[in-house]
Amino acid sequence: MGICRKDAFDLPDGVIYLDGNSLGPLPKSVSGRLSSVVQDEWGDELIRAWNVAGWMELPGRVGDQIAPLIGAPPGTVSAGDTLSIKLFQALSAALQLRPDRKIILTDDGNFPTDLYIAQGLIKALGQGHALKMLPPEAISDAIDEMVAVVMLTHADYRTARLYDMAAITQKAHRAGALVIWDLAHSAGAVPADVAGCHADFAVGCTYKYLNGGPGSPAFIYARPDIAAQTAPILSGWMGHAAPFDMVPGYAPAGGIERFRIGTPPVLQLSVLSAALELWQGVDMAAVRARSIELSELMITEIDARCPMLDLISPRDPARRGSHLSFAFEHGYAAAQALIARGVIGDFRNPNLMRFGITPLFLDEADILAAVGHIEAVMRDKLWQDPKFMIRAKVT
Amino acid sequence: MGICRKDAFDLPDGVIYLDGNSLGPLPKSVSGRLSSVVQDEWGDELIRAWNVAGWMELPGRVGDQIAPLIGAPPGTVSAGDTLSIKLFQALSAALQLRPDRKIILTDDGNFPTDLYIAQGLIKALGQGHALKMLPPEAISDAIDEMVAVVMLTHADYRTARLYDMAAITQKAHRAGALVIWDLAHSAGAVPADVAGCHADFAVGCTYKYLNGGPGSPAFIYARPDIAAQTAPILSGWMGHAAPFDMVPGYAPAGGIERFRIGTPPVLQLSVLSAALELWQGVDMAAVRARSIELSELMITEIDARCPMLDLISPRDPARRGSHLSFAFEHGYAAAQALIARGVIGDFRNPNLMRFGITPLFLDEADILAAVGHIEAVMRDKLWQDPKFMIRAKVT
Repeated sequence: MGICRKDAFDLPDGVIYLDGNSLGPLPKSVSGRLSSVVQDEWGDELIRAWNVAGWMELPGRVGDQIAPLIGAPPGTVSAGDTLSIKLFQALSAALQLRPDRKIILTDDGNFPTDLYIAQGLIKALGQGHALKMLPPEAISDAIDEMVAVVMLTHADYRTARLYDMAAITQKAHRAGALVIWDLAHSAGAVPADVAGCHADFAVGCTYKYLNGGPGSPAFIYARPDIAAQTAPILSGWMGHAAPFDMVPGYAPAGGIERFRIGTPPVLQLSVLSAALELWQGVDMAAVRARSIELSELMITEIDARCPMLDLISPRDPARRGSHLSFAFEHGYAAAQALIARGVIGDFRNPNLMRFGITPLFLDEADILAAVGHIEAVMRDKLWQDPKFMIRAKVT
Repeated sequence: MGICRKDAFDLPDGVIYLDGNSLGPLPKSVSGRLSSVVQDEWGDELIRAWNVAGWMELPGRVGDQIAPLIGAPPGTVSAGDTLSIKLFQALSAALQLRPDRKIILTDDGNFPTDLYIAQGLIKALGQGHALKMLPPEAISDAIDEMVAVVMLTHADYRTARLYDMAAITQKAHRAGALVIWDLAHSAGAVPADVAGCHADFAVGCTYKYLNGGPGSPAFIYARPDIAAQTAPILSGWMGHAAPFDMVPGYAPAGGIERFRIGTPPVLQLSVLSAALELWQGVDMAAVRARSIELSELMITEIDARCPMLDLISPRDPARRGSHLSFAFEHGYAAAQALIARGVIGDFRNPNLMRFGITPLFLDEADILAAVGHIEAVMRDKLWQDPKFMIRAKVT
């Protein structure tokens, strides 16, 4: 149980938080860090803080905090912008490296922004690229010499189905294709050995399992030999080899630094950095083992006590990420009824109740208490209350 | 003097801050707002805050706070990302609208990231576009039927030279070209009537005169009829017409909303929103008038007392933004010597000492005290001290 550090988070009384896979809770260390960055750095040092407080190096420093969690060496990860932007960078760079191939292969359950970003890039390039969307189980067989890039999300945001990163990457490389892994639902939840499996690019967000707060910056990993070959489309001054020389012509910085774009979001990066300190000494294999223990417990209990909930996540834990999705016809209202009882999970179209299993702050007692509430909601049909049927804007 | 609200800022004792044109000082309201967003919203509401705290609407709400400062109607400005990204969006959209034209016209003193972003986009599109860089005084005459987009920074970051936005925009439109204005050094300093002059796009940053803090989000304005015609290249899910339907195909939201990309940086937007509340009831014409008064005072005093400083900003206040640049051979070391005396300005290559005039927290006494220090540094050649010659990374 060495990895549970519930005391490090400000969790409200009476709440069982099963939505760390969407927005992680507030680490207690954040307020102090923010106060220091705002008062001591911005307030007192003013413009000098770019140097004396090391603001300019934050994207790489935070990247180095993320690196061990995804199996990346130091100096290969940069934090900043949003996942959409980081994916655009990875995808545009990958397409440059395979100019004779036109297929971007992905699955039809990939997170929408990944699909949208690819669609926008394809249209802009006007070079006849196509986004080939297949069911997840058909992806491996569809990797062939026509494919420029295999672009996949490691853990499916709805089902939690996991791809075998090593097998897919190896197959893609044999076919001469590059691979981009979206680790949005893996970073901090499922080990993702990006260097070990020779992934070309990886991107992810940090407000879920990494607890960086709402809108916290995304990250990008590029294999060093690949990074050195890419000419960034989003060629902002912070990715320049010498930004403060302020010369009129763009020249990319070395390695991952060239994926920096504009002025870094210092406050959000500082918060994220404080949140990432919670991971010092945490072994991702231990996180994974606990995630599986807690997930198995929840599945066993729900199977036994809530037969109307239909697990659509894989039953084999080796093929499942760190959340559980159950189909239920009245899932939206049921999720609201649970929130009213302090059990916060979320809902995804069309009928999925989704629960994030986050061993950093959840234990068996939380899971059992949550299942007790779920059982009550189901048994007493609390989802029938009309007030739970009103859809919020953000679901 | 109704616009000076020095009491609203946390300025360190003994500091005269003439660098508000690079990083504005800390508004006192920021700490309270951050504490509320972090503890009450993120900490207590957790994922629910996207709805109950209105996080999802922040880009538009903050955009509406910026709008009156740049002459834009409500609902036409969106905040987020960085200036580099927002410029990329504006430029790519503009080029789409002039498919038969290949020239992007700009001046050779434009801020580097503007030039770099154009270079990256041109290379990616591979459609034969060219970035035509001319001296600022040659721009107007170079606007012809070959030009797709005129892309200019209203107030030059080194010299503070101002373009006549209305005249350039009118000339460009007569030639069938579109215009993008970068308001990085104008927003909060110089009135920029984007709607009145029929600008097609405007972008800007918010950490200078708007005091949004380090890395605070950028903004984009698009003329409504233009916005409705553009197909965003950076087509992230937050710019989708129905992001939470999570359908596989991208469809742009209406108007300026389609320039949203990824999950908004809630903490930075909240800080920015608090900072922008200082502008309620502030008349930009009054800010401009005070900026000119204070600038003229500084010029007069420097001319009289520091003959070795050579003003390279325009002497005509109507042609000058809200900072002053003086050429001086030992400018870097002199700027450091001034900082050591509490007068914080900055330095720009090759030899420019730059001072931002920010009437929201500066008055005549500040200017006179600063000139006293500048005079002492020059008279006593304090820039000769070797410790002032060590270049910091970020200058």
